[in-house]
Amino acid sequence: MKIAVLGTGGVGVAIADKLIALGHHVMMGARVARNEKAGEWAKSAGGNASNGTFADAIHFGELVFNCVLGAVAIEVLGSAGANGLDGKIVIDISNPLDFSKGMPPSLFVCNTDSLGEMIQRAFPKARIVKSLNTIAAPVMVNPAMIQGDHDVLICGDDASAKAEVTDILKNWFGWKSVVDLGDISGSRVTEAWVLFWVRIMMITGSPMHNIKVVR
Amino acid sequence: MKIAVLGTGGVGVAIADKLIALGHHVMMGARVARNEKAGEWAKSAGGNASNGTFADAIHFGELVFNCVLGAVAIEVLGSAGANGLDGKIVIDISNPLDFSKGMPPSLFVCNTDSLGEMIQRAFPKARIVKSLNTIAAPVMVNPAMIQGDHDVLICGDDASAKAEVTDILKNWFGWKSVVDLGDISGSRVTEAWVLFWVRIMMITGSPMHNIKVVR
Repeated sequence: MKIAVLGTGGVGVAIADKLIALGHHVMMGARVARNEKAGEWAKSAGGNASNGTFADAIHFGELVFNCVLGAVAIEVLGSAGANGLDGKIVIDISNPLDFSKGMPPSLFVCNTDSLGEMIQRAFPKARIVKSLNTIAAPVMVNPAMIQGDHDVLICGDDASAKAEVTDILKNWFGWKSVVDLGDISGSRVTEAWVLFWVRIMMITGSPMHNIKVVR
Repeated sequence: MKIAVLGTGGVGVAIADKLIALGHHVMMGARVARNEKAGEWAKSAGGNASNGTFADAIHFGELVFNCVLGAVAIEVLGSAGANGLDGKIVIDISNPLDFSKGMPPSLFVCNTDSLGEMIQRAFPKARIVKSLNTIAAPVMVNPAMIQGDHDVLICGDDASAKAEVTDILKNWFGWKSVVDLGDISGSRVTEAWVLFWVRIMMITGSPMHNIKVVR
């Protein structure tokens, strides 16, 4: 499959590397076509890897992974034009983190709204599925790095898009447990969970932890 | 021990019943001395049970369980006077839930502040320990009702108070795993978790679930 990975940070590279390993064609998108990190990644990742602008990547991808900072997510997703994402599944991994006051971050939207909802409202014909935003980058594509049962969370308004993403999470990335939190407003609770995740990280000194909903 | 339980709802009754079963002397506090629910509880719970106003209960208790609605918590805790809680451990189970727009609730304070912190600021000489606010009332005092490993969360500024409350959670209530989230600002993440808890409840139709931090 032709897949866009938006963002050149730890999340983007972890996702892109895994997709290449699975045999997919991946274009990593960045703000400029000659982004150094994206170029180096594409060079090292082999013949199925390429890089370009965010707009290039969105046009290329049949499926889009949003791995940019939450603060720029809507701008980046709109860079291929208002209709550039129409009909496409967007796996939104971004979080509305505000680091302006240092650690721990706060959220620039929360409680009665969320970044996932803002993105879905901004691109009403895109099929936004919020997932993976609650997990450290290497664990996203290798859940066995954390021992024991633990969950990846998913939410979105489009049931068939969620079914496809659930399949990706299970069969491409190896997740055994995908917890469906309903429509895209579930982003309110998964994005808020990230502050909990950060707190655990600050206390334990490690990002290698996750959540299990026990029921 | 002489213990105050503030509140006559499901949480107050679950906690008070358990404390009586453990042999403690419990006064259930309510807005008025002749509160019907508190009176009925005291009558049915035997000789170690009594009831009175919130102020009566606070004066009575060597230890205080705050089981009232978040919206009135500071008013209730202040009803014994500004210094009524000085030196006392207050186990704060309240959540800053706003039901004014129906279900699911939102939070009236979150992200960069929390009810736990507001209470600690309002009563600086009280030893506030936030805990149990993330769990259904019957499970608070009987964690084995949910099968498998799961956690109770705790935070607070006073280390010795947290140690005492940890002992209570483990040895009185039966919790095997108490996760310490640090100072009282940990309330931001445990109170926000409650929205996640509500979402799971609305999806599964059951309050019988909890969290496990897997690491």
